Amino acid sequence: MKWMRFRGPGGAEAFGVLQGDEVLVHEGDLFGDSAPTGQRVPLAQVEWLTPCVPGKIVGLWNNFHAAAEKNGWAVPAEPLYFLKAVSSAAAHGQGIPVPRGYDGRVAYEGELAIVIGKTARGVSVAEAPSCIFGYSCANDVTAMELIGRDPSFPQWARAKSFDGFGAFGPVVETDFDWREAVLRTRVGGRERQNFPLSDMIFSPAELVSRLSFDMTLLPGDVILCGTSLGVLPMKAGTEVEVEIEGIGVLKNLYG
Amino acid sequence: MKWMRFRGPGGAEAFGVLQGDEVLVHEGDLFGDSAPTGQRVPLAQVEWLTPCVPGKIVGLWNNFHAAAEKNGWAVPAEPLYFLKAVSSAAAHGQGIPVPRGYDGRVAYEGELAIVIGKTARGVSVAEAPSCIFGYSCANDVTAMELIGRDPSFPQWARAKSFDGFGAFGPVVETDFDWREAVLRTRVGGRERQNFPLSDMIFSPAELVSRLSFDMTLLPGDVILCGTSLGVLPMKAGTEVEVEIEGIGVLKNLYG
Repeated sequence: MKWMRFRGPGGAEAFGVLQGDEVLVHEGDLFGDSAPTGQRVPLAQVEWLTPCVPGKIVGLWNNFHAAAEKNGWAVPAEPLYFLKAVSSAAAHGQGIPVPRGYDGRVAYEGELAIVIGKTARGVSVAEAPSCIFGYSCANDVTAMELIGRDPSFPQWARAKSFDGFGAFGPVVETDFDWREAVLRTRVGGRERQNFPLSDMIFSPAELVSRLSFDMTLLPGDVILCGTSLGVLPMKAGTEVEVEIEGIGVLKNLYG
Repeated sequence: MKWMRFRGPGGAEAFGVLQGDEVLVHEGDLFGDSAPTGQRVPLAQVEWLTPCVPGKIVGLWNNFHAAAEKNGWAVPAEPLYFLKAVSSAAAHGQGIPVPRGYDGRVAYEGELAIVIGKTARGVSVAEAPSCIFGYSCANDVTAMELIGRDPSFPQWARAKSFDGFGAFGPVVETDFDWREAVLRTRVGGRERQNFPLSDMIFSPAELVSRLSFDMTLLPGDVILCGTSLGVLPMKAGTEVEVEIEGIGVLKNLYG
């Protein structure tokens, strides 16, 4: 099922299941018990919201074999990650503003997002899938030149956390096999990324398990699985689409 | 005023003003309109909670002149910061568990915490104080050996985000002049840190202003102002106290 959150014609926030051109509105808890209200809202009447409200957004670095090989990075012994401020979250269709406090290059990074559904604390790889609610598309936007600007301290958190830099959506798909899917990123209509998710170094279950030994993962938390080849800077005024077969297309205008 | 959050004898979460050995319970919004209910609860009957529920916890690196000098770090041109997972938050009196996924040294870092009270987006240094709700004590606990363990990627977020590693409290003090205050950290009763907050490189107003150009700061967000000299590893079973004159004493047992 494709779960989505939205603001309806009356201005209220709601959630439901995407079916064709409509949302089947639900009530209750997205990660607990929920039931259809019977109401259907045409997509044309909704403003998309991020499909969940994360308490934290974890982003992986160097998690694809092809990118590691091309960049000369060793395959890491353990997942290497940063945190993105949750205030960077942006929904499908929402603009990604040009940062106020930085005027260097800004890159798109098409990624698979894991959405946590159950509290995970020290779970095994075998238990991890039961803690995953579903998957979404993400654009892990990055202020490329910030990371290394100060030689004494790599500014990963800052480079990844400008408002709008954590775009994900449009939906969370609960029935999804990442092993079979390809991710494509189109920038201004031109395909720039096209890679199989099966090339991941640490699988979603491994990521959830390993991370859960570091920090408690909570329902709604989001883990971005890292990107692969084809990352480039964006020009202001460009539309970026991240498409994952079986999930959907996340579309955002940069600038 | 010293604002605190707590779980009362009935198990419900509430907030109020600390007065002597009692809490004057309030209703409403800590960052908006609130009013006393008339109820007073003895401190002996409450379980302390973190004084607010942050949407993000930002931590400063290299923000004290004395530490920069001793460690041979250049005074930074701009605030250098990382993010701590909000799941690391721990209240006054709560235990800080020994990490499951790491067996190296773990250090305390006594710090001043800024608590945001009003949404700040691109605010000037002059406007920044009006966005600060108040100040708290923090222990920015750090898995020291993790940061540099992988030569290809510094693991700041991970080293700072284990459950309990973001201890802050006991209260948020709204009437506080950091320029006059000293921070002391005691470990197992022995004083290990003692430094004036006036030695900060970027002041709270500068931090809030600069950060607000990177990311929107929201009510309840917490900024840890960095630590100074005297950081050492802790042994499991040690009580750590971070005291700031005029705010209070944050006490946590490690391990």
